[in-house]
Amino acid sequence: MAIFLNEEATFKRVESDCIFCKIIQGKIPSFKVYEDDKTLAFLDIGPVNKGHALVIPKEHYELYMDVPENLLLVWMASVRKVAKAVMKATNSDGLNISLSMGKAAGQTVNHAHFHVIPRFEGDGFRHWPQGKYGEGEALRYVDKIKADLE
Amino acid sequence: MAIFLNEEATFKRVESDCIFCKIIQGKIPSFKVYEDDKTLAFLDIGPVNKGHALVIPKEHYELYMDVPENLLLVWMASVRKVAKAVMKATNSDGLNISLSMGKAAGQTVNHAHFHVIPRFEGDGFRHWPQGKYGEGEALRYVDKIKADLE
Repeated sequence: MAIFLNEEATFKRVESDCIFCKIIQGKIPSFKVYEDDKTLAFLDIGPVNKGHALVIPKEHYELYMDVPENLLLVWMASVRKVAKAVMKATNSDGLNISLSMGKAAGQTVNHAHFHVIPRFEGDGFRHWPQGKYGEGEALRYVDKIKADLE
Repeated sequence: MAIFLNEEATFKRVESDCIFCKIIQGKIPSFKVYEDDKTLAFLDIGPVNKGHALVIPKEHYELYMDVPENLLLVWMASVRKVAKAVMKATNSDGLNISLSMGKAAGQTVNHAHFHVIPRFEGDGFRHWPQGKYGEGEALRYVDKIKADLE
């Protein structure tokens, strides 16, 4: 992790080996669709459906969980702005907004990114499989999750 | 759509046929893991992995795109709070944060909801298939998406 001082004299987090940081810096070309001070959106070059965009914070954070709350909210506002534009541009019937955190979840680039995927009736992108809880098991999960929230 | 005046004399949006509105009102039981003034989180009863939670705004909006911006940001802060707790409770290796907007995208309950799904190495939940752009096609999509953002 290299830390550079940017023009506004705030700390800018850049990771020299990160492909998305290189896109932000213009060192790698991308199909940009939106940019503001804090966030950037560009086309996923392997789209689920055409128009599929990625929305990222410009500062490098590997994981969704690492992004500071104020930046998270700016990022989430950009996600919706881009989602609206993607839906309109592609005249899609629906949308998926999706993020993978960690390799186990399918994260392939180590710079936190939300996918905005236009969806069409019958496009064949399947829903995930559903499991089941055993007797009393759901409550044990509730207790464990609540323990961290109260 | 029925509109009721709640205790704080603000307009509360409730849809009488909505299963999530019934959960919010306590008319249908759920495994709640988090609740505040504006948002609620509970276990998905058909979990991808156990501990899989849904996070919703308490006011009824069918679509992600319909949720007002200030509520969207409160909602997104709750999603992260719950994500952190789910990950810790399940000791997961990763997480998916995911929303489906519209039937074409797999939305099955007409009350906007984010999925928080704990993920584990080798759990077999597959990544989506990737497509390809033809010559010049990506730029045409960029232009269409940017048209709504500038």
